[in-house]
Amino acid sequence: MELARRRGFIWPSFEVYGGVGGFYDFGPLGSILKNKIIQKWRELYLIGENFFEIDSPSVMPEEVLKASGHVDHFVDAMVECRKCGNSFKAVDIAREATGKDIEGMKETEMDEFLSKNKVRCPDCGGDLGKVFLFNSMFRTTIGPGSQRVGYLRPETAQGIFIDFKRLQRHARGKLPFGVIQIGKGYRNEISPRQGIIRLREFTMAEAEVFFDPNDPHHPNFSRLAGEKIRLWRAEEQIKGNEHIVEVTAEEAVEKKYIHNELIAYYAVLTKKFLLDLGIPYEAIRFREQKPWQRAHYSSETWDAEVHTERFGWVEVAGIANRTDYDLSRHAKFSGEDMTMTLGDGERKVLCHVVEPSYGIDRPLYCVLEHAYTAEGDRKYLKLKKWLAPVEVGVFPLLRRDGLPEKAIEVQNLLRKRGIIAEYDEAGSIGRRYARADEIGVPYCVTVDHQTLNDGTVTIRERDTTKQVRVALENLSELLTSLIGDLVDFEKIGEPVKK
Amino acid sequence: MELARRRGFIWPSFEVYGGVGGFYDFGPLGSILKNKIIQKWRELYLIGENFFEIDSPSVMPEEVLKASGHVDHFVDAMVECRKCGNSFKAVDIAREATGKDIEGMKETEMDEFLSKNKVRCPDCGGDLGKVFLFNSMFRTTIGPGSQRVGYLRPETAQGIFIDFKRLQRHARGKLPFGVIQIGKGYRNEISPRQGIIRLREFTMAEAEVFFDPNDPHHPNFSRLAGEKIRLWRAEEQIKGNEHIVEVTAEEAVEKKYIHNELIAYYAVLTKKFLLDLGIPYEAIRFREQKPWQRAHYSSETWDAEVHTERFGWVEVAGIANRTDYDLSRHAKFSGEDMTMTLGDGERKVLCHVVEPSYGIDRPLYCVLEHAYTAEGDRKYLKLKKWLAPVEVGVFPLLRRDGLPEKAIEVQNLLRKRGIIAEYDEAGSIGRRYARADEIGVPYCVTVDHQTLNDGTVTIRERDTTKQVRVALENLSELLTSLIGDLVDFEKIGEPVKK
Repeated sequence: MELARRRGFIWPSFEVYGGVGGFYDFGPLGSILKNKIIQKWRELYLIGENFFEIDSPSVMPEEVLKASGHVDHFVDAMVECRKCGNSFKAVDIAREATGKDIEGMKETEMDEFLSKNKVRCPDCGGDLGKVFLFNSMFRTTIGPGSQRVGYLRPETAQGIFIDFKRLQRHARGKLPFGVIQIGKGYRNEISPRQGIIRLREFTMAEAEVFFDPNDPHHPNFSRLAGEKIRLWRAEEQIKGNEHIVEVTAEEAVEKKYIHNELIAYYAVLTKKFLLDLGIPYEAIRFREQKPWQRAHYSSETWDAEVHTERFGWVEVAGIANRTDYDLSRHAKFSGEDMTMTLGDGERKVLCHVVEPSYGIDRPLYCVLEHAYTAEGDRKYLKLKKWLAPVEVGVFPLLRRDGLPEKAIEVQNLLRKRGIIAEYDEAGSIGRRYARADEIGVPYCVTVDHQTLNDGTVTIRERDTTKQVRVALENLSELLTSLIGDLVDFEKIGEPVKK
Repeated sequence: MELARRRGFIWPSFEVYGGVGGFYDFGPLGSILKNKIIQKWRELYLIGENFFEIDSPSVMPEEVLKASGHVDHFVDAMVECRKCGNSFKAVDIAREATGKDIEGMKETEMDEFLSKNKVRCPDCGGDLGKVFLFNSMFRTTIGPGSQRVGYLRPETAQGIFIDFKRLQRHARGKLPFGVIQIGKGYRNEISPRQGIIRLREFTMAEAEVFFDPNDPHHPNFSRLAGEKIRLWRAEEQIKGNEHIVEVTAEEAVEKKYIHNELIAYYAVLTKKFLLDLGIPYEAIRFREQKPWQRAHYSSETWDAEVHTERFGWVEVAGIANRTDYDLSRHAKFSGEDMTMTLGDGERKVLCHVVEPSYGIDRPLYCVLEHAYTAEGDRKYLKLKKWLAPVEVGVFPLLRRDGLPEKAIEVQNLLRKRGIIAEYDEAGSIGRRYARADEIGVPYCVTVDHQTLNDGTVTIRERDTTKQVRVALENLSELLTSLIGDLVDFEKIGEPVKK
């Protein structure tokens, strides 16, 4: 995290004003990394799965969120200290004080639990008030006066559901079809204390897959049926058992570990996405939510979790069976017909929905933590090459003899070809390599005196620290191939002895 | 607009709940178009100009917006009808009723003007109340209770200014340097009535260029100095004169039409961006804001305007000299040092800022309107090819004989190469071409019986409706070159007689 701040990946927001919990900025490197993760996700669903994308507002009028159940159910049980006035989630302070999980209890049961266990304010030791429910949506008003209440959306999904009538026309009577939305989601957390893991404003990437409840299958299931996933079932969790089963998607469905083929399909897709980001297979598991942990709309939810050193297992995505909950609620509250007429033209259906919903900020943190590598004195970010926010470093060996000018020329050439190349001339060449390693630059190009004579440069590979010498005229093509993992580094040029 | 709705470019938001003014959704085609515009803009500044990008929250605590002046100055003068209770911008109803512009007047002067001209409620004819100021930021509270007031940001710029201390380290002591941010901005409009032109939530793309007030020059000015721009000076506007001058950027600075070289530089860049989007040169002008129209932070502002049939001249970007207003205010309010030490290490400077700030939604609308082409019975969207949300249509000539299967194979092949290809088999081939024309698909590939025999397909060009026959094995490469305007359509294959 120190590295992430210092080098411009992530910064606490509003720092010069003392900061506000639950908000983070993405700096120059973090922004590029974030955009690359978003772009990868978008390709996966938009191109790979042929989904549609929409983009709808983050401010929503109360009617929508009343219908979706969020006004009533998107709540946290909280307590306020009677002495210092600070607020806490009841579940959090109970866990901190007693190690016990009181999730799922009613407010009165929580009250009883807290007083029986003599739980006091963790900040000042003061007396705690009664447990009460706090709606965790940010509230605002639309237009002048306070006539029209609005909220910042807690999820992007509702924008998709209320557009269903228009969207289904694009599907031309065929199910399943999917719609994605990428954008900000908001949760007015009570007192967020886990940095980038518990944000009040976060970027979400959600997919809503509409399917026929009479035919709950994925047409391409066979393509991924043999892929393995690691499952931690609710049954085991309730027994207090850490046991993880490793099964193929097909087995998961056959053995009724996962009750819906589409959930199994998107679990595999999620695993593949996380692998693409560089998260190791062993650090990925799917945890089934216990019935009382599930959101109000869900009949089955599996969280994709990634193991981190700092925060333990972190939820990075959730795959939920939302049934027909949302469409039927919006049909009821809006009075509109939310059914779809299938291709045969004879059968109307109220679609059910499976939702693979991803955070973007948390996977980004996990990527950074997993990429961080210390080998003896050498510290570097072993980012997947395509993910690196700086793809190529360009260095003049010395700050004279026309080498800087030539190096800047090389940098401009690479940038014109769409390669993110950064120029650096400060300090010794070794220090520059080290600085580049620290932010995960996969290749560094050095311009030296030989460059001026024969038009060749050296390329140094981050992971092996090996160097080869290649002709400038092939440079951009070679680097593009190297970043895309299409060629073998040691075969592209003359090895350089160190 | 009818076409834009029907085909999934833009939809009024929350339609099934009766809609809420000032909010729009981007449908499947609109989202792709929007993302392409954003991507182009990002490339222009991030790659082309070597700027940094950051991404900061849309919810901001009050302190920041107090310091930035928005709590005090981001206000609209409004009136409420005493009878029906509807609210209006004073400037709008004065203009509607009298044709006169009362912008810049004080509230009491407005009151006098409205009563002297007997302006009444445009909705019900009722009596109007007194003019009062309404802050047009969306207000919310952060955390439980209402202790901490927050607002939805009116601009992304403030997120950049408050990060200045961290950002300037990335610039390594060199000025000018630039930082961009792309994201949502919010303005709680009183009663927005101009569709997508007057939004309460919009996407902005802003660049803040920090420069040394003692050296207010752009190092690459000479590169764009000879480019022409069309200017409508404030002086002419005040005289009631429509006169536009066409000058090069260099002349604009020399003649002191534009008082800052950086503003002239970014005006040219803005012109190039709009040309890239397909806006014709004659439909682009830069209008200087009159002193009383300028935002509270600006000493000089030029709006880039695009002419549209529906809304007349529409502001799509503003280039403002924000001076040291923001940095000095944040220095004062936060108590932090906001100066920068220049490369020589001896000189500290409080940077000044030139800000090229773009809307994304409005240019998108302008692009659609300008692309819409009616030639006799034929109607099509003459979008720039790279901008088309569907790049290639793939059609089987008939729905039998294995042609659909082959066409789907072709579609998948193209999608794998990153081409946005859509399959369509519904209706006659002529109707399918017409449907593709309507959404601006630049090329349509048809699979026919000859395809099965000799592995060739036809490609039809939207703008000329001409067709050529080419081999499948070259198809994706050819289409990529065609979309990138790298080859001449008529030379790539055998012409097909219609």
